[in-house]
Amino acid sequence: MRAYDIIKKKRDGQKLSDEEIRFFINGYTVGEIPDYQAAALCMAIYFRGMDGAETLSLTLAMRDSGEITDLSGVGGVRVDKHSTGGVGDKTSLVVAPIVASLGLTVAKMSGRGLGHTGGTVDKLESIPGFCVDMPRSEFERIANQTKIAIVGQSAELAPADKLLYALRDVTATVDSIPLIASSIMSKKLAANDDCIVLDVKTGSGSFMKTEEKSRELAKTMVEIGKGAGKKTVALITDMDKPLGYAIGNSLEVIEAIETLKGNGPADLQELCIALAAEMLLLADKGDERECREMAERALSDGSALAKFKEMVAAQGGDASVADDTSRLPTAPYSLDVMSERDGYISEVDTEGYGLCALALGAGRNKKEDKIDLSAGIILKRKTGDRVSRGEVIATLYSSDAHRCESVAKRLLSYTAISDAPPTPSAQLIDVVR
Amino acid sequence: MRAYDIIKKKRDGQKLSDEEIRFFINGYTVGEIPDYQAAALCMAIYFRGMDGAETLSLTLAMRDSGEITDLSGVGGVRVDKHSTGGVGDKTSLVVAPIVASLGLTVAKMSGRGLGHTGGTVDKLESIPGFCVDMPRSEFERIANQTKIAIVGQSAELAPADKLLYALRDVTATVDSIPLIASSIMSKKLAANDDCIVLDVKTGSGSFMKTEEKSRELAKTMVEIGKGAGKKTVALITDMDKPLGYAIGNSLEVIEAIETLKGNGPADLQELCIALAAEMLLLADKGDERECREMAERALSDGSALAKFKEMVAAQGGDASVADDTSRLPTAPYSLDVMSERDGYISEVDTEGYGLCALALGAGRNKKEDKIDLSAGIILKRKTGDRVSRGEVIATLYSSDAHRCESVAKRLLSYTAISDAPPTPSAQLIDVVR
Repeated sequence: MRAYDIIKKKRDGQKLSDEEIRFFINGYTVGEIPDYQAAALCMAIYFRGMDGAETLSLTLAMRDSGEITDLSGVGGVRVDKHSTGGVGDKTSLVVAPIVASLGLTVAKMSGRGLGHTGGTVDKLESIPGFCVDMPRSEFERIANQTKIAIVGQSAELAPADKLLYALRDVTATVDSIPLIASSIMSKKLAANDDCIVLDVKTGSGSFMKTEEKSRELAKTMVEIGKGAGKKTVALITDMDKPLGYAIGNSLEVIEAIETLKGNGPADLQELCIALAAEMLLLADKGDERECREMAERALSDGSALAKFKEMVAAQGGDASVADDTSRLPTAPYSLDVMSERDGYISEVDTEGYGLCALALGAGRNKKEDKIDLSAGIILKRKTGDRVSRGEVIATLYSSDAHRCESVAKRLLSYTAISDAPPTPSAQLIDVVR
Repeated sequence: MRAYDIIKKKRDGQKLSDEEIRFFINGYTVGEIPDYQAAALCMAIYFRGMDGAETLSLTLAMRDSGEITDLSGVGGVRVDKHSTGGVGDKTSLVVAPIVASLGLTVAKMSGRGLGHTGGTVDKLESIPGFCVDMPRSEFERIANQTKIAIVGQSAELAPADKLLYALRDVTATVDSIPLIASSIMSKKLAANDDCIVLDVKTGSGSFMKTEEKSRELAKTMVEIGKGAGKKTVALITDMDKPLGYAIGNSLEVIEAIETLKGNGPADLQELCIALAAEMLLLADKGDERECREMAERALSDGSALAKFKEMVAAQGGDASVADDTSRLPTAPYSLDVMSERDGYISEVDTEGYGLCALALGAGRNKKEDKIDLSAGIILKRKTGDRVSRGEVIATLYSSDAHRCESVAKRLLSYTAISDAPPTPSAQLIDVVR
């Protein structure tokens, strides 16, 4: 078998066999197949696509390129939730405690963020003392004891995907559904949970700008999950506007805590309940209505909040932040952004908002960049809201006053204000089972 | 400017600017743009193509990546001829002496062969003493004195093409008209002759299997040549059957010498005259009829043969081979291949024949391989000929008796014999001016 023939076969629109895909991925992972052949194959896949069987083979080959987490020592039904990434998405911080408080096990390995804001582990690190790097034995001990533990992703998880993603990133071959789906799912499957709930974002603040593409990605990932013997479901949710009002690490932790207390923004609370309900449903905790009610109750009766505090304490963090969020990092500088006219916020460039948060210091441009955990944006008005000239629509936070200044104008440019209110859009667009 | 953006632009079907193409090729040549980005770009070009302006920019960028031959010290109109490669193609050995005997200058840098048989310089090296590697000054001196010199291609000629071709060869991105055309023409333009006649082969023994693709390649190359200010014409010629009867290095030199004596096979002689006439026409030596007659006369009056001998002697070779071809390398082993049935040779797999010659030792599998100059095939019957069961259709030559044995059966499998004769096909299919 030769890498050349595999590239040519895909280039010519033929279907690759499981054996061919494994040969390529294994060869690439050990360095026998060079980057340039992998780049050519990725570009051929970009143009020719892959069918369900090929995409599953690719996912499993990447999953098997490294360690597959064995948490058989951790009891209970293990569930995971993954978001394709959105602006202001802090759902994991709320959903994980909800389902853990209801008896499911969330032993989650989460990535750090690259782009507008940090990932879940970056957000958690804004809690003083919170530790996301620990030996496997400690991770298992905590997961067993508290049913919830969230740590950084091991480098040993799907190394083929890590290599391939880095290559795709510099060869303009990221935007391919089979490559995106297999990349995400190889890591999820290597984490080896029993149930996987996927949150596929769609719209201006997401990776997939159109509903059609999001649906295709969702279907592809659900098929992979099922093909690998895991219970899998995907929600397609709106990212034409930021989720909640907070964008930025400690700011999002504060909003997550408020949501756990039942005081969260409606859109965020609704999505958290929907995701938690799907996880409970996959874990056979009841029917749809029952699962939803259980999730709602976990928020209203304080059990999810208690579980959150338990997790923070178990991972060495200061659990009192849940009672006094002023203990979280606070930015020394802030600046209000005012509307320049009367009207309704008709549309926002959500990705643009994300880039504003990045410019304030909330995210990373490069892997090595250090995050300003206190930086970010608190929206005061969102799409559909009425605003008056001079009214504050957002407050910017940063450790650098100049950054606030330079971002203010930019944020306004991403905010369209018109005379008539926009048509409201749904938060939960579809469920792919 | 970033390599990534250029890849993405082409991937998305947009036209690249001259500046972008030069940035990429220059960056790649000096090693600033890595192989994997070049591989991704080549695959994107494979799928999206390039228009005439882009292809010209690519060609000129590759031409300018190295030395451009300055033969201004060599007098006369300098002409070149290039074949896209076929089985049994020894036309350069005949055409160059014809036109040189008529006053044009052929100072030709030719590549070594990779594949079924050697290139022109390999063939010439089967003449005892013939030298194809010499200092530039010596090359110029001979070209000035005899109007004809054929040497090996300098590594300094279009190094970007050399790098890119090696990369395309292992990433399944060879089969792309703009990439093939720019690769060939970058070297032709770096050789910097005044007139270029291209022989684009079509059919089973050529690179381009269909007439449509051959025509597209021919048009693209002629456009590039003209775009670069050179007089350029392309003949599209048949390669559904081998050219002449000899395949292999010294065997082809013998057939070329016979053709120079006016005793060559009709198809070979006809193509040599057509190519020579086009070169004379481009050099304004007369009208079409006059140029053709001049070329015919050069063969019939012995002046082309005399010029060939002059070239051989000037490059240190034994010119008496032209009078006594037995002085050329002769294979110690030979084997006749007999027809297994009565009928007509209706079709041959010409590329298959070429691979048989390669298996006998006449070509190179890898660049480092040494060629068996005496190895090859003499066809006794060709497409359209009537054959009887047991009649010899070809004789195989090699320095290795086992090779002859193993190739015999294979050659038969590439030869279709049927009851009815095939429809005769034309040798010269079209001229693209």
